[in-house]
Amino acid sequence: MIELHEDERLDYLLAENLRIIQSPSVFAFSLDAVLLARFAYLPIQKGNIIDLCSGNGVIPLLISNKTKANIIGVEIQERLYDMALRSISYNGLENKIQMVHGDLKDMPRILGHSKYDVVTCNPPYFVSPSPEIMNENEHLAIARHEIYCTLEDVIRTSSQLLKQGGKAAFVHRPERFMDILTYMRQYRLEPKRLRFVYPKQGKEANTILVEGIKDGNPGLKVLSPLFVYDSENEYSPEVREILYGNEQ
Amino acid sequence: MIELHEDERLDYLLAENLRIIQSPSVFAFSLDAVLLARFAYLPIQKGNIIDLCSGNGVIPLLISNKTKANIIGVEIQERLYDMALRSISYNGLENKIQMVHGDLKDMPRILGHSKYDVVTCNPPYFVSPSPEIMNENEHLAIARHEIYCTLEDVIRTSSQLLKQGGKAAFVHRPERFMDILTYMRQYRLEPKRLRFVYPKQGKEANTILVEGIKDGNPGLKVLSPLFVYDSENEYSPEVREILYGNEQ
Repeated sequence: MIELHEDERLDYLLAENLRIIQSPSVFAFSLDAVLLARFAYLPIQKGNIIDLCSGNGVIPLLISNKTKANIIGVEIQERLYDMALRSISYNGLENKIQMVHGDLKDMPRILGHSKYDVVTCNPPYFVSPSPEIMNENEHLAIARHEIYCTLEDVIRTSSQLLKQGGKAAFVHRPERFMDILTYMRQYRLEPKRLRFVYPKQGKEANTILVEGIKDGNPGLKVLSPLFVYDSENEYSPEVREILYGNEQ
Repeated sequence: MIELHEDERLDYLLAENLRIIQSPSVFAFSLDAVLLARFAYLPIQKGNIIDLCSGNGVIPLLISNKTKANIIGVEIQERLYDMALRSISYNGLENKIQMVHGDLKDMPRILGHSKYDVVTCNPPYFVSPSPEIMNENEHLAIARHEIYCTLEDVIRTSSQLLKQGGKAAFVHRPERFMDILTYMRQYRLEPKRLRFVYPKQGKEANTILVEGIKDGNPGLKVLSPLFVYDSENEYSPEVREILYGNEQ
């Protein structure tokens, strides 16, 4: 039994064999969240993982199959936090995933400094919304625009939450790439792994995945490029595998 | 008539229909120089271009077909400077390319600040050589290691030479990527275009191409990835075209 509100629907997370509550008018996860969940380093046996800007809990749900660590998701919008709680409950993952309703900037004070092994975050991408955007749909505007948190907030908070040697993984747009790297160095998250996502061969990248290590040594690896679509405009084999799992 | 010394040979720059003096024991250009020459923005009709760490003049020669601008090459090693002079003469390009024998750090004082539209540089990649490397072959050690100039020297000098709005293009290794970006921002060369070069599909990048604009606005484009080899370990079509031109 699950309670669905208004235009919510119960979607599949196929490769993980889970289900998730989404709503086109409130929040629906994007491919970026799926790519980040796959990209991020995860401790297998134990540890503490925290996902900021967690939305409907898509990243905690996606990574829950791949780690025995404790996972916390932080979401500021009560409506999304509530969707995440119901999805976690539907999948029977209450013992593995805790959701916190609050402002990520308060989390180091509330949850503790330097306690986490991994931070993940798929933050709002756009700097400042026009008044029209705010009026149109507040839920979507908050998820997409830096209304409650800036990129700098995300990176500073991630660093505060991480243990020394802990890893932070972010997904963002190439336009903000220099800002991300600048803030990461400023807040002691040395960039170590980088992957660019291209819509298809021959196109510019439209997404970046970056992982930093708190107080890590300099030295960056640039992983093989990820193409979302093939020349036939179908999902590439790698993306199909991430979305749907190994088809046999 | 051309004078070749010791183990020098007269190699072809195929796509450009030029020839260049090389020597395995002194200096031979790499694919990186060819990729940088193709990557760099060049004014077509007029302007001033300067190539630092010019070696045997490979980049001035490669770009000479593509621009009517004046081109200056700067090389600190007299032996390489002399090879460049003879190659320029052999190709009849004395009116288009001038070589300067000197330390790039002195060039803003000697040649003038803020006079150039474009700076290119394929600098030494490695930080500090061990004494054995220095003893083995001084010419190659200087070309490959930061003996006479550091990465910071290259980027600071490039910025001093460039006009406001001028472009600097560099090729380097991903390991130094964070340093390059940090120095570029520090010396007012805002990174604007970035391209990663991968040996082949599925491998990590081993080369980066980056272009910055002096006092440019933030906003970075990540161009499509460049693969050097195809799955058969032959040069990819794009690299073949860069090296050999359009085969018809």
